[in-house]
Parts: sequence; C-alpha cells; structure tokens
Amino acid sequence: MAVNRFGRLLTLTTFGESHGPAIGGVLDGLPAGMPIDLNLVEECMNRRRPGKSPYASARNESDSIEWLSGMYNGFTLGSPLAFLIRNSDARSTDYQDLESVFRPSHADYTYSKKYGIRDHRGGGRSSARETAVRVAAGALLLPWLHQQGISILAYVDQIGLHRTPTLTFSPDQVYSSPVHCPEPETAKKMMQAIETAKSNGDSLGGTIRCQILGLPVGLGAPVYAKFHADMGSAMLSINAVRGLEWGEGFDMATRFGSETNDAFVPGESGIETLTNHSAGVQGGITNGMPVDFRLAFKPTSTIARPQKTVNQKGEPITMSATGRHDPCVVPRAVPVVEAMAALVVADHILAAKAYANLWKP
Amino acid sequence: MAVNRFGRLLTLTTFGESHGPAIGGVLDGLPAGMPIDLNLVEECMNRRRPGKSPYASARNESDSIEWLSGMYNGFTLGSPLAFLIRNSDARSTDYQDLESVFRPSHADYTYSKKYGIRDHRGGGRSSARETAVRVAAGALLLPWLHQQGISILAYVDQIGLHRTPTLTFSPDQVYSSPVHCPEPETAKKMMQAIETAKSNGDSLGGTIRCQILGLPVGLGAPVYAKFHADMGSAMLSINAVRGLEWGEGFDMATRFGSETNDAFVPGESGIETLTNHSAGVQGGITNGMPVDFRLAFKPTSTIARPQKTVNQKGEPITMSATGRHDPCVVPRAVPVVEAMAALVVADHILAAKAYANLWKP
Amino acid sequence: MAVNRFGRLLTLTTFGESHGPAIGGVLDGLPAGMPIDLNLVEECMNRRRPGKSPYASARNESDSIEWLSGMYNGFTLGSPLAFLIRNSDARSTDYQDLESVFRPSHADYTYSKKYGIRDHRGGGRSSARETAVRVAAGALLLPWLHQQGISILAYVDQIGLHRTPTLTFSPDQVYSSPVHCPEPETAKKMMQAIETAKSNGDSLGGTIRCQILGLPVGLGAPVYAKFHADMGSAMLSINAVRGLEWGEGFDMATRFGSETNDAFVPGESGIETLTNHSAGVQGGITNGMPVDFRLAFKPTSTIARPQKTVNQKGEPITMSATGRHDPCVVPRAVPVVEAMAALVVADHILAAKAYANLWKP
Amino acid sequence: MAVNRFGRLLTLTTFGESHGPAIGGVLDGLPAGMPIDLNLVEECMNRRRPGKSPYASARNESDSIEWLSGMYNGFTLGSPLAFLIRNSDARSTDYQDLESVFRPSHADYTYSKKYGIRDHRGGGRSSARETAVRVAAGALLLPWLHQQGISILAYVDQIGLHRTPTLTFSPDQVYSSPVHCPEPETAKKMMQAIETAKSNGDSLGGTIRCQILGLPVGLGAPVYAKFHADMGSAMLSINAVRGLEWGEGFDMATRFGSETNDAFVPGESGIETLTNHSAGVQGGITNGMPVDFRLAFKPTSTIARPQKTVNQKGEPITMSATGRHDPCVVPRAVPVVEAMAALVVADHILAAKAYANLWKP
Repeated sequence: MAVNRFGRLLTLTTFGESHGPAIGGVLDGLPAGMPIDLNLVEECMNRRRPGKSPYASARNESDSIEWLSGMYNGFTLGSPLAFLIRNSDARSTDYQDLESVFRPSHADYTYSKKYGIRDHRGGGRSSARETAVRVAAGALLLPWLHQQGISILAYVDQIGLHRTPTLTFSPDQVYSSPVHCPEPETAKKMMQAIETAKSNGDSLGGTIRCQILGLPVGLGAPVYAKFHADMGSAMLSINAVRGLEWGEGFDMATRFGSETNDAFVPGESGIETLTNHSAGVQGGITNGMPVDFRLAFKPTSTIARPQKTVNQKGEPITMSATGRHDPCVVPRAVPVVEAMAALVVADHILAAKAYANLWKP
Repeated sequence: MAVNRFGRLLTLTTFGESHGPAIGGVLDGLPAGMPIDLNLVEECMNRRRPGKSPYASARNESDSIEWLSGMYNGFTLGSPLAFLIRNSDARSTDYQDLESVFRPSHADYTYSKKYGIRDHRGGGRSSARETAVRVAAGALLLPWLHQQGISILAYVDQIGLHRTPTLTFSPDQVYSSPVHCPEPETAKKMMQAIETAKSNGDSLGGTIRCQILGLPVGLGAPVYAKFHADMGSAMLSINAVRGLEWGEGFDMATRFGSETNDAFVPGESGIETLTNHSAGVQGGITNGMPVDFRLAFKPTSTIARPQKTVNQKGEPITMSATGRHDPCVVPRAVPVVEAMAALVVADHILAAKAYANLWKP
Repeated sequence: MAVNRFGRLLTLTTFGESHGPAIGGVLDGLPAGMPIDLNLVEECMNRRRPGKSPYASARNESDSIEWLSGMYNGFTLGSPLAFLIRNSDARSTDYQDLESVFRPSHADYTYSKKYGIRDHRGGGRSSARETAVRVAAGALLLPWLHQQGISILAYVDQIGLHRTPTLTFSPDQVYSSPVHCPEPETAKKMMQAIETAKSNGDSLGGTIRCQILGLPVGLGAPVYAKFHADMGSAMLSINAVRGLEWGEGFDMATRFGSETNDAFVPGESGIETLTNHSAGVQGGITNGMPVDFRLAFKPTSTIARPQKTVNQKGEPITMSATGRHDPCVVPRAVPVVEAMAALVVADHILAAKAYANLWKP
Repeated sequence: MAVNRFGRLLTLTTFGESHGPAIGGVLDGLPAGMPIDLNLVEECMNRRRPGKSPYASARNESDSIEWLSGMYNGFTLGSPLAFLIRNSDARSTDYQDLESVFRPSHADYTYSKKYGIRDHRGGGRSSARETAVRVAAGALLLPWLHQQGISILAYVDQIGLHRTPTLTFSPDQVYSSPVHCPEPETAKKMMQAIETAKSNGDSLGGTIRCQILGLPVGLGAPVYAKFHADMGSAMLSINAVRGLEWGEGFDMATRFGSETNDAFVPGESGIETLTNHSAGVQGGITNGMPVDFRLAFKPTSTIARPQKTVNQKGEPITMSATGRHDPCVVPRAVPVVEAMAALVVADHILAAKAYANLWKP
C-alpha cells in the first residue's frame, strides 16, 4: 500500500534502500516562490551525517544531495521538489553473513514475513538511513518558517541515566556538542557513557526534547487532526522511538486539575496563559504558547556482542554484528526530530491558510 | 479542512456538537457480509455512558443508536454504515454564562480564534462526547476481529498515585469495576481518590494500559505507516491524552541494547521472541507477540473551584464551572481506547489483505 | 474500501440505500462562519425531486432534510455538517420479485458479484437516489460561491434527437421548464418524446450542458489535479453518464491548431482570450473565461417492456419492471450536475487559498 | 497542494520540469515479489519517444531510465520504486524569446498567474514530457497484469477527418505503424494529413480508442469510485484530452433503453451479456466484458505560424514558435493512454483484493 508518504497538503514521499543505488524524496505541495537555502540544508544534513565522531557509526556517507526538480533561479516553482542522495559508502559485504539471519529486535523477520522478499543489506528499506531524506526536506522549509517567526529546537535530554538540566538553550549550544546535548557537563558524561557501552559491545537509549516557539494560534483541529496527534504520528515514525510525552506527559496523570489548568491572562500581543502545562496545545489546536515534547528512544538493536537468534529457516543460531553502526542513535536523531517537526508545522500552516478570512460573519 | 475522519481503507467520519441535534458517524470501507452484533455495541456503549456512577458525569444520556444504512438482514452490505445518537439530556442552560468565557485549558479560546465562531454549549465539537461515536464504530468490528483470534483489552492502570499491579486480567475483571480497574483493592483506592477530588471541586488524571493479543505477523509498514505510529496517532486523538509509551516506553531510554533486545526462538506456531521488549512491533511491523501500550491522561479541565481566566474581550474574570462533568475521565476512556485500537487493527488487516499472496516469486 | 467520499479539502461523504432507513451526507471542510440558506437548498432539492411531473418517476419523496450538525445560529461552525433524508415513500414490495433477478444494464449483477450480498430493494446503494444528497450539499455552497461572483448553470441540451439551440439562457428559463430545457419549443418536443417513450414502455437518453461563469484564474494544477480532470471525475460519478466533452470536445479532434488556439488579448480586468475553445481551462488551470462542458446520459435501464435476462442462479428468464422509475433521467440530473460542479469549484478555491500570497519573491 | 500523485493503494508520484535536470517518478504500493521486465519498459518508452519519425517532435531524447530503488535481484521489494530520466536534449535557447510571452492555448499564462513564478523553458512542469514517466510506470505493471489474463490495447482512431475502421486489431498492427494506426490505408492518409499540416505550420487533433480485455468482475464501486470515473480522471489528466466517450458515449444519448440495454445470458465461464453497450461497466463496477473507450485530443497548441498574443505585461505582440514540437501529439499519446489504463486497473485490483473472501456469510 502506498504509505511511504507523510503529510496532507504538503507531503514528503521518500524512497530508497540503505544499500541500493540511492535514497531520495519528493516534497510536493510547497508554496511557489519560496527561496531555497542549500547551505542551510547542508548544515542540517551535517548534524545527522555518520562518520564524524566516535559516538556515531563509522559509515562515511558524504550525503551530498542531487537536486532534480521544483526549483528555478533559487526559488521554488510550486511543482514537486525531488532530490536524491547516492549510497556511496555502502559496504554490503558486511551484511553477507546476515542474508539468512533474523537479527534480534531488527525489522529482518517482520519485513521478510510481510513482503516475502527483502534487501538484507544494511537493513534495506527499514534502515534509519531513510531519515537523511527527512532532514533534507525539513531543512528546506526553515527559511519560510523563520520568516514567520517560528523556531524549532531539539536537543538530547537524556542518555542512559544522564539527564540534561531543564534550562533554556540556544541552537549554538546544541549544535556545538558532538552528542547534541547543550549542557557541557552532562554532554561529557553522555559521551563517556556511549564510549563505555561501545567498548562493551553494547548500545544505549536516550530521550530528546523538542521545543517550538512562535507558532500562531489556530494550527490543528478538534478531533482527529489534533496538532499533537499529527506531531505524535510524525515522531513515532522515527526509528527507535518508543514513547512520547506532550509537555509534562505522564506526570500529568498523577496531578489534580487545579494544579495543571493554565489560567488565561491578557498578554502583550493577545491572550496568553500564566503557566504552560498545555505545552502550547488546547483542544488539539495551538494556543500561541511554546510547544514542548519529549521522545524516548530505545537502545540501538545492533550490538557487537554475540546474541542468540534464529535464521530464515527458524533454526537457532548465535550471531555477532559486524556492520558499522551507532552505539547510540539519539544524538543523530536530533535533526530528524527537528525536520519532522518542521514538516508538521508547515503542513498545518498551509491548512490554516486555506480557511483564513474566507467569510466574515 | 476535511479532517474529521480516521483511517485509510476503513475510515470513520464523525460529526456532531455536544449540544446540537445529534452526534454520529459513517464507517466506510467495511467488508461486506460481516455479521452485526448490536448487543455487543450496546455493551461497549454502556461502559462509556455517563450518568451511571458517582465517578462520572451526571449527564444522563441514553446513547441509544439509530442505524441509518449499510446493513441488511443482520449483515454489512459493503456500503457505508451510518448511525446517529441524539443529544437528549443536553442542559445547555448550564453553559449560558460561559458563552463569552474562555475556560482554562479547554478548547474555547483556540476554537474561537481558529474558526471565528463556536457553539459554546457543552464544548461544541471539542467535547469528548464525540468519543461515543468511536465506541460504537469500534464495537461493530469486534465480531470480525474475534473470529480472527484477536482480542483487545484496556484497563485503568493508574489514577492519581494509585497504580494497578502488573498482572494478567480478564475482561470481566475490568468491566465489573465502576472505574475499569481490574484489581479490587486498587480500584477501591481509586474510587476514594476520585470522590475526594470531586468533593474538593477538583479533578484527577490517570493512565490506561491496552493489550492486543492474537495479531498476525505483518501489520504495519517500515516507514510512515508503522503500526505503532498509526496506533499512536489514534490514541493521541483521544481527548486529554498527553503521553504514550509503547511497551516499556521511557524506561527503554535508560537501558542497554543487551538488556532490551528480544532474542528470536522457534515457537509452536512459528518464530517467537523470548522476551517482548518490542511490545509486538519490530521495524514498524507486528511480529505476532502481544501489543502493549500505556497512555497518560491529564486531569479534567472542568473543575468546580473558582478559577481566574479571561472573557472573549480578553478581560480578566473569575469563573466557576456549573455544567455536569467527570471528576476523572480515565475510567470512561477505557472503551474509547479499545475502540480506537479496533479501528487501527481492522484497517491494517485490510491493507495487509490487499497485498497478500499476490505473486509467488 | 472507503470510497464513498468526494473531494480533497472539502469532502462530501454520502451514505444510504434507496429503501433503507435514510440516505444522508457529511460535508467536511466547510469554511466556518459561512451563512446557511436552507430555502435555497430546498429549491435545489425540488428541482431534482421525483413525483412532480409525468416526465419523472412517480415515487413521491418529500425529501425533507434533517440537519444534524455543523451549523449554529444560521452559520457554519467549521465542523462537519451532517444531514439525512428519510426514505418515506419506498415501496419495497415493488421489488420483491426482483430479489433474485439481475436486471439488464443495472448494477444488480456486478454489485452481487463484488460484495456477495446486496439490498435489492430499489437498487440499494447503486440507486440514483444517492444523488439527492449531492444536491443538498452543493446547494449549501451556493451563497458562498455567489458572493465570489461565481454562477453555475446547467440545462438539458438534448433528449433523443431534439437539441436545444446554442444560446445564452437565464436560470429562470431553465428552472421554469418541467424538463429543464430553457427553449420552450424544444422543451415541448422533448416532453412529447418522453411521453411517447413512456407509453411504449421504453426510456430515453440525452445530454446536459453546464456553464460556469466568474471563476478566478488559477484553479486546478498542471498534472493530475487538472481542473477539468477533477470536474470530469465528478461528472462521471453521476449515474448514467457515458460521455464528457470539454468545450467543443470531439469536434476539436477534427481541427487544425490554427483554428482552435485562443489568442490572448488585453481585457478590461486583465488578460482575456479572443475565443474560448479552451472552455476556460489551459494547462489544467482556469484562465478566467467561462467553463463549458457537455455530458451524455444513456437511457434509463429500467423499462416496462419484457426483457430477457438471468436470475441469481444464472438461469435465463424474462422479466418486466414494475417499480416506479424515470422514463428519462436527464431532466432530474440537471441539479445533480450543478451540485457536483459546485463541490469541485469550492474545493479548488480552498486549495488555491492555501497557497495564495504566501511568499512574495 | 500535494497533487502530483495518481492512485489510491498504488500511487504514482511524478516530478520534473521539461528542461530541468530530470523528470522521474515514485511508484508506491507495488506488490512485493513482482518480476521486473526492463526490456518491456524500454519497448513502451520507445513507442512514446520523440525524434523517431517526421510525424513527431525532433527533440531527440534517449529517455534512458535510471532505476533508484524498490527492486532487488529482478523483483520488486514492496518498497517505493523510484526512477529518473535525464533531460539530455533540452535546447532551452529555443525558449529564450518566450520567457516573457504567453503562448496561445498553452499553460504559460495560467501557470504564471497561479504560481507567480515559472520555468518557461519547454513548458516547465506543464510540458507533456511528464508523460514519459507515466509510460515507464505503466509498463512496469504489464507482466503482473498479463499473468492475470488482462490485456490493454490503444490505437489512433482518428486524425483530422481520417477514421480507422472499427475492427479487431493486434498489438503488432498498432505498434508497427509510425502513427499507431493499425489499418495501413488509413495510416497512410493520417501521415499525409500530418505532413500537410506541418508544412503549413499548423497542427492536428485526433482520437484514440482503448480496449481492455480480461478484467475480472468486481472492479470499481457504486458511487464515487466508479471504475469508469477513475479511468476518466486518469485520461482527462493526459495533456490535450478534451473529451471521453465510454463505449458508444454520446450516441447513447440519442437512443431508447430498449436499444441500449444489455441482456444477460449464461456464458461459458459465468454470466455474460449478449451485447456490450455498457462497455464492460455496470453500476460503476466491471462486469467481465471488454472495456472500451475513446478520447478526443485537441490539436497541438504550438504551431509555427505567426500568432497574436500578449506578453507578461499584458501588451499585444505577435509570436512564432521556434521550439521543436509535434504537429500531432495523438500517435505519441497511445502508450500514455495504455500506461494510465494499466495504473487504474492495477490499483482497482489491489482494492478488490483487500475485500475479497473476508467473511463468508
């Protein structure tokens, strides 16, 4: 079924297997006349790119993008913007032994059983390599969102047991850290934890926090297209995400309404709330306050230690991973979270525009 | 924008405002020849119905369903199955004072600002009354799912600080409890906590756990239509949901891969996993093991205590709620969670059927 | 599969079988604050209603509409607008003999074979009775379209061999004719032809022409959502339509480009074309000139004469129709054509609004 | 808005401007394990390719396809199948003079007005070059359709006033003709007519007939997804199509029901109809008889003769086309019609599979 597509008015269709000729995407529904900032795209791509630090996979992909359509003289044309990224450093030989093996907690078994065929090399279509396409697509939207006063910032909130203190951070603080943790002391501990896990042939999970400032009031809808439901769907589609908290999330479940209601007050530019337990969304629709959510990532399934599993015939075997992989995917997932957030926000802005000022009763 | 619809091949479109003439739904994409069990629908509706216990709103809706189309002689016709529920006990006078007031943490402000007009009575379109339609729709699918060996069971996992022990429960244990908590001792404490909150003019949050057994391998897809992303979107569209954990959720973020990987083993009816940290989904596709997730609900926004807020002119006022409302929505949300789960499962089964056995390579 | 829905941003979902409890629809994606003119809806419904003249079915449906949601104090709420129409004059006994018969050129055979079950009474879901819902939905949009200077007018262009001269007509001229033919002499001949066919136990086909004035430049898209492709899909979904000509249609196929190209000229309110062979659409996008298309309807399949056919067992039989039916559906299809045109136009206007003035390069 | 996509379960998303880096497509929703026949794709591409005969544009595109994803060892993977075609022989200098000119009956004016920006070179996104992508996508489906006993054959039915006699033709007869007209005498006259038009600096319209044999009973749906409505939408999205007749089309409008009804009779492999006025579809659903439809194409808008028009400032000018173009697009449109028909058929087969044999009442 045709489900390799995300969005409503603005859609991203992605394609490509990890070790096939290329991965890529088609961004359809972009406003025409939007300026393109390819440097900004490259910056975002670099934040996700492997092969840069000991905390990420050693696969060295240049991830340079070939632009195929949809732009002319530096502006969008209103037609689909397509692009591709070659898979240049695919060492498929690493995966030869895995052709008939179902790696634990990977998609090997479920993909094989569902489709009856699979490209086992590097995880094929199930590989997180697909998220490179999302980062490129999301980055293309940033100039347009920035012009509207909207900013999106994600950072690594927790790795293992090390948690970033709850403060306000700048993009520079986040991006200058090899693990995308803006607080240097915590970042250092996180890096040590990753190194230790790696040297133990193990992997680590973590959490990411994402904040969106400057959203207008009115994005979302009361029932199925709640802003946070669409955002949640976007986030849960990112590999390894296993939990989502909107604002205070599960802590809200233990509270009284008198503690968690946000009182409305007259603000400088309209109505505001005194507190922000709603994390920017009420009744499924943005209220102009900061959006704030947190995601849980499970540890990478690929670990170097020998593990018990079965082969395609269902026979018990013991395997050890040999491909290059991330001991902790969380740092590299930060730009993916930002990109998916950008796609959701842009899509909702377009939907809201379709209905604005149509009729004055 | 047309977003009052959920699903892909099987869709539920809902309509209706809390105090308008009726709420209702159109279930389109049902298989033809499916038997209808209206008693089962009524049972599910009763579990959600208000006016039954001191732990829920006193609004006494019979919630009797008028069936309009799509069935003939007890079977589905393959055409849209439409139904409506009259709003019989709507005391709109309770809301007269609220016409110009934005209630804290409700949808009043965001709806007004987005649409420029609203039906303030009982929350209008933003009311959780819409979820009655979902329960009816989900219940219609149960005979078909049961025939395939699939069962869905949700229960109240936590209210305030009282948490249900992690055990295996039967539907009877859940449904016989006025608060849908299957463990009697915990249920008693939850009821006391709700009563206390109510007498304090306050409200309470909580969590629901949902388990799905008997799913086939192969529901979902590798990228955007991951089974748990679609399920997450369904759950986040339920009023007051603020968090979702798939399996161990946020706890996974603190672990090592060697602790959370699920080893494959030969099982009786095919390949199984020794543990179920994946909670039934790997690479976005079901693996045949039990699905298991947990949801956080914030406390009801409507509380009897006086609260500071603003009116439509943005002027500060103090208000006290007078409408009938739930001191804790979590017990009544249990059948809503089950219904949305049924819709997601049925939709994914149909999608999988479209592609099964098409070509034997 | 969920396909009882038409439109993109503005969608109409319909439900109901001809002799079931009710037919109805959900119009989702309406702008909020749009005024409702129920009298205008009734007028449009009356134009399609059976039982009014000897030229249409004697089934006497009041077709009074019950409004269920989406409006408040005379304005749309931005939520789904749902409504239903009871099937009050369904004489299902007329169809008792037909339960096991496949009527020639009807949907009986194909529906049975596809779904394995059918409501044979009055054609069930395949009945043109469903188009009453479309008329109501289209009529709701008219005040909004009129305010934007857009008008839609269809009329009967041909019945049998009698063709309406190509002139400009007013709505009054069309609507005052019992067969919706605006030219009285031709109308008289058409009525005679219908009466003759009826008395012979036969039925007649015909054509409808539809013109849309006042459309803005820019509705449609270059590739798959061409304005005339979406309009064509809408028109081909009307029962009995077997052909569509955009502008001069098949005559264009016999011409030279030098004869059919439309020269651009400066006009009063912008660029116009000297001729209108394009019938208002160039490259799939409206150019501000009148839209003009023609539809062919086949003769009604239900005829009183004895016909050879087979029953559900595949055995040859001879049958004679006894239900009430139209000797010629074309006059009653005029408001259906107008309604579907209104839905397409409104949907495209909303899509265009989403992208207007987003970025000034 | 994201509308560069065709289909429901099986979708084709296309991208690319005529003189941009590349055009291409993503075919999503293909069954996994389907064999790929790249030679067959090339054959179909050759039938549409320009630069081969004096009856088509001299633009010499190799139209070689670069396959990017979705296949492995000669079979589909169930993941999106993406491909691109470079624009190698784009002589954009031909279009330099046209940067500020609105060519008569082209998309220049409407695209500019809608999007505020355009790539004027070769028609940009509005160019029929996009249809090369459709041909490739449709050709990929042919082995799967052939295996199911389905064949699709289109041919040139009329050019100018020369019409192909109504006979049964083989693919060889069609494909061996430079103008895709299977009857040699008529083909000769068509070629002469095209040459004459070309030497006069003019262009010609024509019609194409398409027949589909071997379809199962049950494709389509009773209301909006009628098989012929979806097919019509597909056909009207092809550049220059201005009319569609299903079966006898407009001739049906002049007939009596007693002449056009198809009597059911017991056939060898089930129920058949004695005649086929329904052209294979009854009540929107295929009945197993041959599908048969005809399309009208307007003459190419690009002609060499001087024409009056306006420039972007709205000032009157006279222009003469200098780009390479087709004096008659109809012959090259034949494989495009076949490809769109293949996409519609395959999509409907998948939809039917989702609902087959789900429940035996």
